[in-house]
Amino acid sequence: MLLRYFYDSKLAHASYLVGCQVTGEAIVIDPGRDIEPYLAAVKAEGLWLAAATETHIHADFVSGARELAERAKVRLYLSDEGDANWKYEYVHNYPHTLLKDGDTFNVGNIRFEVCHTPGHTPEHLSFLITDTAGANQPMGIFSGDFVFVGDVGRPDLLEKAVGAAGAAEVGARQMFRSLQRFKTLPDYLQLWPAHGAGSACGKALGAVPSSTVGYEKMFNVALSHTDEATFIRALLEGQPEPPKYFAQMKRLNKIGPPVLAGLPQPEHLPFNRLDALLAEAALVVDTRPVAAFATGHLPGTINIPHDNSFTNWAGWLLSYDQPFYLIADSPAMSQIVRDLTSIGLDNIGGYFDLSVLDAWRKAGDPLQHYEVATPDQIAGQVAAGQVTVVDVRQNDEWQTGHIPNAKHIMLGYLPERLAEIPTDKPVVVQCRSGARSAIAASILQAGGVPRVINLLGGIKAWDAAGLPVER
Amino acid sequence: MLLRYFYDSKLAHASYLVGCQVTGEAIVIDPGRDIEPYLAAVKAEGLWLAAATETHIHADFVSGARELAERAKVRLYLSDEGDANWKYEYVHNYPHTLLKDGDTFNVGNIRFEVCHTPGHTPEHLSFLITDTAGANQPMGIFSGDFVFVGDVGRPDLLEKAVGAAGAAEVGARQMFRSLQRFKTLPDYLQLWPAHGAGSACGKALGAVPSSTVGYEKMFNVALSHTDEATFIRALLEGQPEPPKYFAQMKRLNKIGPPVLAGLPQPEHLPFNRLDALLAEAALVVDTRPVAAFATGHLPGTINIPHDNSFTNWAGWLLSYDQPFYLIADSPAMSQIVRDLTSIGLDNIGGYFDLSVLDAWRKAGDPLQHYEVATPDQIAGQVAAGQVTVVDVRQNDEWQTGHIPNAKHIMLGYLPERLAEIPTDKPVVVQCRSGARSAIAASILQAGGVPRVINLLGGIKAWDAAGLPVER
Repeated sequence: MLLRYFYDSKLAHASYLVGCQVTGEAIVIDPGRDIEPYLAAVKAEGLWLAAATETHIHADFVSGARELAERAKVRLYLSDEGDANWKYEYVHNYPHTLLKDGDTFNVGNIRFEVCHTPGHTPEHLSFLITDTAGANQPMGIFSGDFVFVGDVGRPDLLEKAVGAAGAAEVGARQMFRSLQRFKTLPDYLQLWPAHGAGSACGKALGAVPSSTVGYEKMFNVALSHTDEATFIRALLEGQPEPPKYFAQMKRLNKIGPPVLAGLPQPEHLPFNRLDALLAEAALVVDTRPVAAFATGHLPGTINIPHDNSFTNWAGWLLSYDQPFYLIADSPAMSQIVRDLTSIGLDNIGGYFDLSVLDAWRKAGDPLQHYEVATPDQIAGQVAAGQVTVVDVRQNDEWQTGHIPNAKHIMLGYLPERLAEIPTDKPVVVQCRSGARSAIAASILQAGGVPRVINLLGGIKAWDAAGLPVER
Repeated sequence: MLLRYFYDSKLAHASYLVGCQVTGEAIVIDPGRDIEPYLAAVKAEGLWLAAATETHIHADFVSGARELAERAKVRLYLSDEGDANWKYEYVHNYPHTLLKDGDTFNVGNIRFEVCHTPGHTPEHLSFLITDTAGANQPMGIFSGDFVFVGDVGRPDLLEKAVGAAGAAEVGARQMFRSLQRFKTLPDYLQLWPAHGAGSACGKALGAVPSSTVGYEKMFNVALSHTDEATFIRALLEGQPEPPKYFAQMKRLNKIGPPVLAGLPQPEHLPFNRLDALLAEAALVVDTRPVAAFATGHLPGTINIPHDNSFTNWAGWLLSYDQPFYLIADSPAMSQIVRDLTSIGLDNIGGYFDLSVLDAWRKAGDPLQHYEVATPDQIAGQVAAGQVTVVDVRQNDEWQTGHIPNAKHIMLGYLPERLAEIPTDKPVVVQCRSGARSAIAASILQAGGVPRVINLLGGIKAWDAAGLPVER
């Protein structure tokens, strides 16, 4: 048996290729939308892709299952658990097998044993796999968003992201029961989850890619509860705000995401297209690092730096209905497109390369910048009420302590709540360390706030400077 | 705790980065010589590299431990087990800690517990690691070349590669005892070995990157023996020929390999340097794929295609004492240099890009080619004794069956045994599938054999065609 691990660090998403070297057949588990890495690995290993499966209808990225069915002609093995709301609507167009608890299927000599493990979602499956060529007991479990390293899948996404009232507690109860079953598995089994540290599908995922059933039984805090009510309370507590785009992912992955047939190649737009776009208030996203944007950018553009948080903030801030435009370094474009399409943001109207900044200046128009300030530099004005402080952190972060009189608007909701921010005074924008507030500063400025100041080092630096924090 | 896995597929070598997110400290386990990937990962994760360790003095690649000590100023944690022949000679120039069985050391909150596990080598260590921030029991074991997924480290390298008589059986006995100890470890522990499928440090390594102690106890055939004598016999049987360069690696990793301070940048040589080099019989290696070389190459050059076997055959066929030259596609050069230096072949005299082939032709000199033949095309001449058949496979492959009257010279020994091959008849060269014999064909031709024919599809195709095989 061959096992290959794929990790998208921006999505904190793990997927797996399992191959049988005897028959040459291979399967992808929980594929992401860009299927090229799987196809390349299969080719390099002299295998062929026979199948794809997923543990559940993902909410945080566009699944590659349909893409694989369409382009690589694989058979899909998908869940038939959960009620009518949780049925894959596109599978009937492809060779497929619907799975229930207790079913088994084979990929070459590798046997997949289906376990229904609801909690994160009602239709969630896990797969116990046995390499029957050399063993008569399973080697490990693909646990998807059921059990992670150090955490379990959150059961509240449905309620929070899709608005299904009461679903969080129902899910938590199911999770409790699924975990009782998990605890009966042998300790030696490997545990291969679908997410790593930083995923919004849980609250405390570890940065070790895989684990074992025995280790999680001992040290995963979520598995330590024996009382159901305590478990439910603990599980639902402190979950991060689910990104807004999650609802869209759920929908797409259920009805079947558009087939890409290769990554889109957005048009490389000439400078002379820029004026008209900005005039019609099109969304133009500058992907440069924070410091470069802060010191000089085109008026009206917003900044989502192409770093490890890019996909997350693009999902929060960009539109699935209207085209948006990018300013990016040309060589970075293929990765940027890959990242955007990984969450279904296919609607890229085109991109400008970085030369537009110089061209803008040469045309006689000044670049815009926003101010930055250290805690010490701004503390006096904050204390005197001469500025409005906007804290853009998550709710749970806000609750651990904030600058007195600050207004709390989580970054993801800032565009729709701009009107709440008074513009008679300068606006100091702040997060934990200064990265999210830089994005916020760009949104405020593009939204017409005349004077925006980003707090350098965020509340961490503020607190470290001994300045007042309301707890 | 953070764990990152690095894999060099040409060496089948796994190394690991372990970091403590609380203190920011990180350590590399069994680093390869190119340390850039570790430095990049550490930077991306916001950690700093505090230490490096290795399980043993590696024989199959140049260790990156010294490179890390020199350039990243890490502390080295190295074995002090084994006799005087197994002491690291270079450590005294760097901050270091020498380790014995039972020692412990910490990297941030991560505790390393040292286990002496001789067998593959006398000084071999394994490390049980505990993430003390969240657990009071170990998470897994870095097993180096002690226990692999589905195999254990071979104990005969020392005897075969370095000529230490009797060492194989001594090592096998030690391995038996080390495995008894391994069997007392808890089942749930993860197992992180230093090699994957294809490594010459064992004979049957699995293609699953990691495992668990419990799974290996159940299904690793090497762990199934309870009788020492049976175990030793089984372990020493069927081990592949150790690559010739292994002796050199052992020596370098013990005395301390030269510090690279970045990959060498071999000179891009102009066409007019070629004539003189070929005239003085310098070793010029054409790295193009087999088919391209076969149909047109410069007389006197040999072919080692830059594929997944490149490092292995470069290690067998190139010299550690004299410079060699390359013909390569310029964009591939940085990876080629990385691969060559990974086994200490730093002595790259320079390289020619692919335009030299055209230039050669334009200068009026014909390119050389060698013939290829399918089994059916050549079977008659083989049967009639009109050609000499040279089989270049490993000894164990040869013993499973060969073409009648073939001469067996394993590819790695071909250059030094050229004189044994009669040149009065055409030479048909053959391996299992035709890839190794293509390298052999180039060596024979460069060595002056007037008519060389590569058997397409090797003995596999020969056998499949129903032609006679002597078993």
